[in-house]
Amino acid sequence: MSTEAVFKGWAGLDDKACQGNLKFQEFEPKKWDEDDVDVKILYCGICGSDASALSGEWGPVDNVCPQICGHEIVGEVTKVGTSPDNGIKVGQLVGIGAQSDSCRECDNCKDHKENFCPKQAITFNSPYGRGNGKGSISRGGFAKYWRGPSRFAIPLPDGLDPDIAAPLLCGGVTVFTPLERYGAGTKAKNVGVIGVGGLGHMAILLANGMGANVTAISRSDSKKEDAMKLGASNYIAMGDDLKKAFEPHARSLDLIICTSNPSELPVADYLPLLKPEGTFCLVGIVPKPLEISTFPLIMGTAAIAGSNIGNPDAISRMFKFVVEKNIKPWIQKWDMEEINKAMPSFQKGDPRYRFVLVNTDNGGKL
Amino acid sequence: MSTEAVFKGWAGLDDKACQGNLKFQEFEPKKWDEDDVDVKILYCGICGSDASALSGEWGPVDNVCPQICGHEIVGEVTKVGTSPDNGIKVGQLVGIGAQSDSCRECDNCKDHKENFCPKQAITFNSPYGRGNGKGSISRGGFAKYWRGPSRFAIPLPDGLDPDIAAPLLCGGVTVFTPLERYGAGTKAKNVGVIGVGGLGHMAILLANGMGANVTAISRSDSKKEDAMKLGASNYIAMGDDLKKAFEPHARSLDLIICTSNPSELPVADYLPLLKPEGTFCLVGIVPKPLEISTFPLIMGTAAIAGSNIGNPDAISRMFKFVVEKNIKPWIQKWDMEEINKAMPSFQKGDPRYRFVLVNTDNGGKL
Repeated sequence: MSTEAVFKGWAGLDDKACQGNLKFQEFEPKKWDEDDVDVKILYCGICGSDASALSGEWGPVDNVCPQICGHEIVGEVTKVGTSPDNGIKVGQLVGIGAQSDSCRECDNCKDHKENFCPKQAITFNSPYGRGNGKGSISRGGFAKYWRGPSRFAIPLPDGLDPDIAAPLLCGGVTVFTPLERYGAGTKAKNVGVIGVGGLGHMAILLANGMGANVTAISRSDSKKEDAMKLGASNYIAMGDDLKKAFEPHARSLDLIICTSNPSELPVADYLPLLKPEGTFCLVGIVPKPLEISTFPLIMGTAAIAGSNIGNPDAISRMFKFVVEKNIKPWIQKWDMEEINKAMPSFQKGDPRYRFVLVNTDNGGKL
Repeated sequence: MSTEAVFKGWAGLDDKACQGNLKFQEFEPKKWDEDDVDVKILYCGICGSDASALSGEWGPVDNVCPQICGHEIVGEVTKVGTSPDNGIKVGQLVGIGAQSDSCRECDNCKDHKENFCPKQAITFNSPYGRGNGKGSISRGGFAKYWRGPSRFAIPLPDGLDPDIAAPLLCGGVTVFTPLERYGAGTKAKNVGVIGVGGLGHMAILLANGMGANVTAISRSDSKKEDAMKLGASNYIAMGDDLKKAFEPHARSLDLIICTSNPSELPVADYLPLLKPEGTFCLVGIVPKPLEISTFPLIMGTAAIAGSNIGNPDAISRMFKFVVEKNIKPWIQKWDMEEINKAMPSFQKGDPRYRFVLVNTDNGGKL
């Protein structure tokens, strides 16, 4: 059973793309390799970096044309080559995140830490580097079909709703990975999450599922109720005076996941929240360099870290974990035909807490 | 068997103390508590912070008068109170490092992570906070006798030479702790050590003993031969162009221990040396705040950390470890009577790699 893929999607063609100006059109998929799969897209989450790319923040949109963004893709495999990874079969449900290829030859790839491969391809607007596909530009999930290497098409386990799986593929694994690395719930019993948004709400869900006491940290009280429902047991409304807001919570957290990325981050103000041997981990790029005094870093035996997405094995582990713990990101679904309404709404900050686009004609359910 | 302690030492009285101007005189020891010990000092290492205190870098020397510095103390217990810790007995050899007390009541103390106690006392020029001794100023090891809490007088295991033990008590444990925390030789197979000096040479010895491949990183080639003898298998002479020097070693290190603390540290230049998930750990305070771009931190999943000395249990583990691995810091010994020659020589950078002062009249061996 195989359906011939038709590669059509919502293309960004100029810097107004994100303002409701994506054009539905055909595009050239990756050139076929025998470890590739074709996937009929059912769902695709909208992530901040789609909006960044499509609004020209990362360079003029027409540098790569057409831009088919979207990198939280869930769909059904419709074609498998002669040498698939992951034991993938036609008909299977799979998810594709922000990374869609790697060199397979470096130490990182051999260790299955493909997210550290220096030659990785990201899932949208990035050239593939291997085989027939070398030079093909990656095309994401704001489309009817996706084609790419099967290693990066992660099978969904039984019991995982495919719409719920979508936002986990980039946003979810981005916070799952540092929570796992720094031992949320075990070594890091007390976890702070800065920012209650797309990534932040998943960090609260996951950290709580791992058994941590979660403190949600947000600008105002407006997300307190949601944060508590998501599993936070404490909430800090920062207001305008961080020092004052943090003082009653000094030395209370083993790990802070910072999902907020303002243009400037006064990281020194956050360090007093950490217990000794604690880690402040950023998952979003802050444009202005951080300024860090070494005295509190040393006296507190603290660390300031970054973390970048997760590898396919981490996505698999996360999938199993959310099924086991019955964790479900909070999503709002839009028919993908409505993408030109969904993107401006996303840009206004409307998601509570993740938008997922649905290809109803492919069998996705609103 | 008990000898009555006579508290005399080499006192810093003014900002010229470090230039050969320490005065041998009596001083008032800590007021006795029943968990205290008196220790007849045999050896005391000279550490950078003794020189900092005695040269007025930390405020005028006569703010605390007399300053009896020295915090790498090894000696023989001559008096034990009615409630000693560590099972300490008269006649036993013990070592005292940079910390000499803590509150015993906070969570850190209860976890035996006393080095994170917010009310800790350091071993020199710092007020004790408990019992009869409350308000007594701590006096260090540039003296004939030391008195203080037995919890911080760590028994030397059989097989550990007491002169060799001295520099381990501050410099040694300061690097042992992050090497242990970040898994040198196990999770962190490849360890870089910046600075081949007092702390750096012990970091090389210890990391090599833990089974790591050690890369020594120094300004010039002058310490290459020593570094290789200490156990390094690679050496980087940085010269004036860090980027060029580091390029052939890009992404080669899991952990960097930075023992160098210049007035300004271009930490961004060092990050490319780290493998993904690597840690750059500072153990010495750098006066100017670090400037850190978040992009390489996130893309490399890297961490910048600090680490502050070690607790008594860590010192005990380190003692056992160096005996087991036959690790010996490289020391030059001076009769403590010669302290006014030793300190200026220390200040000139003469140690290869640690000076240890010896009280020959107390039984210390030159």
